[in-house]
Amino acid sequence: MTKIIDPYGAELVEDYSKIITDFGLEKFDYSLFPKPNRIMRRGVVFAGRDLQRIADCIKNRKKFYVLSGIMPTADKIHFGTKMVVENIRYFQEQGAKAYILIADLESAAARGVPLEEAKKRAMEFHIPAYLALGLDPKRTTFYFQSENKDVVHLAYECAKKITLNEFKAIYGNADPGRIMSAVTQVADILYPQLEERMPGIIPTGIDQDPHIRLTRDVVARMKEKSFFAPSSVYHKFTPALDGHLKMSKSMPESCIELPEDMKPLTRKLKRALTGGRETEAEQRRIGGTPENCMVFELYKQHIIENDGDLDHVHETCRRGTLLCGKDKQDAVERMDKFMNGLAKGIERAKSKLDSLHFVKF
Amino acid sequence: MTKIIDPYGAELVEDYSKIITDFGLEKFDYSLFPKPNRIMRRGVVFAGRDLQRIADCIKNRKKFYVLSGIMPTADKIHFGTKMVVENIRYFQEQGAKAYILIADLESAAARGVPLEEAKKRAMEFHIPAYLALGLDPKRTTFYFQSENKDVVHLAYECAKKITLNEFKAIYGNADPGRIMSAVTQVADILYPQLEERMPGIIPTGIDQDPHIRLTRDVVARMKEKSFFAPSSVYHKFTPALDGHLKMSKSMPESCIELPEDMKPLTRKLKRALTGGRETEAEQRRIGGTPENCMVFELYKQHIIENDGDLDHVHETCRRGTLLCGKDKQDAVERMDKFMNGLAKGIERAKSKLDSLHFVKF
Repeated sequence: MTKIIDPYGAELVEDYSKIITDFGLEKFDYSLFPKPNRIMRRGVVFAGRDLQRIADCIKNRKKFYVLSGIMPTADKIHFGTKMVVENIRYFQEQGAKAYILIADLESAAARGVPLEEAKKRAMEFHIPAYLALGLDPKRTTFYFQSENKDVVHLAYECAKKITLNEFKAIYGNADPGRIMSAVTQVADILYPQLEERMPGIIPTGIDQDPHIRLTRDVVARMKEKSFFAPSSVYHKFTPALDGHLKMSKSMPESCIELPEDMKPLTRKLKRALTGGRETEAEQRRIGGTPENCMVFELYKQHIIENDGDLDHVHETCRRGTLLCGKDKQDAVERMDKFMNGLAKGIERAKSKLDSLHFVKF
Repeated sequence: MTKIIDPYGAELVEDYSKIITDFGLEKFDYSLFPKPNRIMRRGVVFAGRDLQRIADCIKNRKKFYVLSGIMPTADKIHFGTKMVVENIRYFQEQGAKAYILIADLESAAARGVPLEEAKKRAMEFHIPAYLALGLDPKRTTFYFQSENKDVVHLAYECAKKITLNEFKAIYGNADPGRIMSAVTQVADILYPQLEERMPGIIPTGIDQDPHIRLTRDVVARMKEKSFFAPSSVYHKFTPALDGHLKMSKSMPESCIELPEDMKPLTRKLKRALTGGRETEAEQRRIGGTPENCMVFELYKQHIIENDGDLDHVHETCRRGTLLCGKDKQDAVERMDKFMNGLAKGIERAKSKLDSLHFVKF
């Protein structure tokens, strides 16, 4: 039986190697790609589909695209979003045409959010946040699903290619709103190829793989359109501060949102699970275990850009010279800098929205 | 358990009174409506929902609408379509604003027909045929679903209001294409109220009642939109020439399509089931039974407009002076005149398409 990963839900991924085997993914090999970014070279990006095709496009300077969607329901984003944007930025720098869609039809169908509300949230927060996180606006095409006739038409065509049982096998939940949401996502993923047939890559968390699989199945059945099946690249979850595999808003004390005020964040960081020892003396003697430390994981995934700086933290922790108290104090300072930069970036980006390229009917 | 009528399928309705009870319909009382048309006053229109509301609109000259859809998959239409158009025409004459949608997104999602193909068929045949059957183009707004952004947006919003189980209970089949098709139909039925909140009536065959019920359920859950639940009016099926309850293309020898060549049609009419007796002598003596005659049913539903003329056929048959041979000869002549008029009407209408009012994005 196929294991169900619910892209809407909360099933935890406990063993990334097992996921690779179970879902028939390729292990991500960063030597395929020039100048891998932080999360690629540090093993946070861990798997993908049809990666060689994208590597070939980069190598041979052939056209390809990178695409992701904004679900404009929340009023915050999270570290997973940050990784998606970083990977989009990476592929943009390698020559990809980037597409960012705002999933307003999905948020209406699956969550009951009115289109106007979704539009407002996207313009006032999500799009500025994506720009602040590094998205290159000059190489990006934006669209709202509700304003993209070609996407809507393609969604209806894709619906005919999927059965209810298949949908249930992939998603578990098959309520009408979810179904319309998923077929629209399939249409989004393929939309750039309506303009020009070319390979494309979708950077995402592993919990979104069902959409990729569904899209690949639909492509195989829509031979008349000659679409390339989408490639994909998956990043690991950012673990919760208490050591759970994934941060979740339902556990706010171990979850960091973007942006977040430093007062609660400082409290949370001070309580984070680390790889420290029972006593300070013991830690000085035998050293800490950064591989068990949620603060180190934050550094590795998000906060410390320079590999030498990260190695230094790793080494001093292992040798017992950097203790958890000092480390957490550093973390608060580094996080303050990061959150400040993000907040300023979002404000700056808001003034640039007029220059963005939106697809309109 | 709710009985399922599959609007896509072929379940036969054997007892119209039972249908009225089982589905909680109102018996159609033509005294509610001024100047009832042929199929109303002859009992072919047999039931409806919320009829008083529409009768009040007519009486008090309040705004209301009448709406129907064209499924542009077939290259012919049938007598059921003719009855729908006649009822639309009736309500137009009583002051309704009429809407005719072309269900191209539905034909893509549920039947895999490309949008361009659907558009071509609608423009070259279906819309001209509707005009030829009496639709008043001056009081009609047309649209293609694929070109009506408001309908698409409303369809996505409606999806959130329906569960999979409910969908299955109503339709049986709940494949994604069917689901998208049905929620789009709900949006179509309500669309005129986005422009202006007003009651509306949907004339249709009883096999389409599931869409009406689903729409009424959705309206009840979308209180924020304050839609009027749609009224509806149902006509009986035109029976097959061999006496089966409904003409079906799958039984071509007992089915008449519109338009149809007179050569096969003459053959079919000559073989039609009548209310004749074993021998000519017996029929002259005790008379025929027009209530069992498929030719008389055609006259009653479609071919003889004047009530006096119809009564005359009824009487002469019952008295045994009009025998089946002569009656069928008359039927061929009458049908020839009808088909000729239809064909000419379709050709005339094709030249008028430029003056129609289409909703565009």
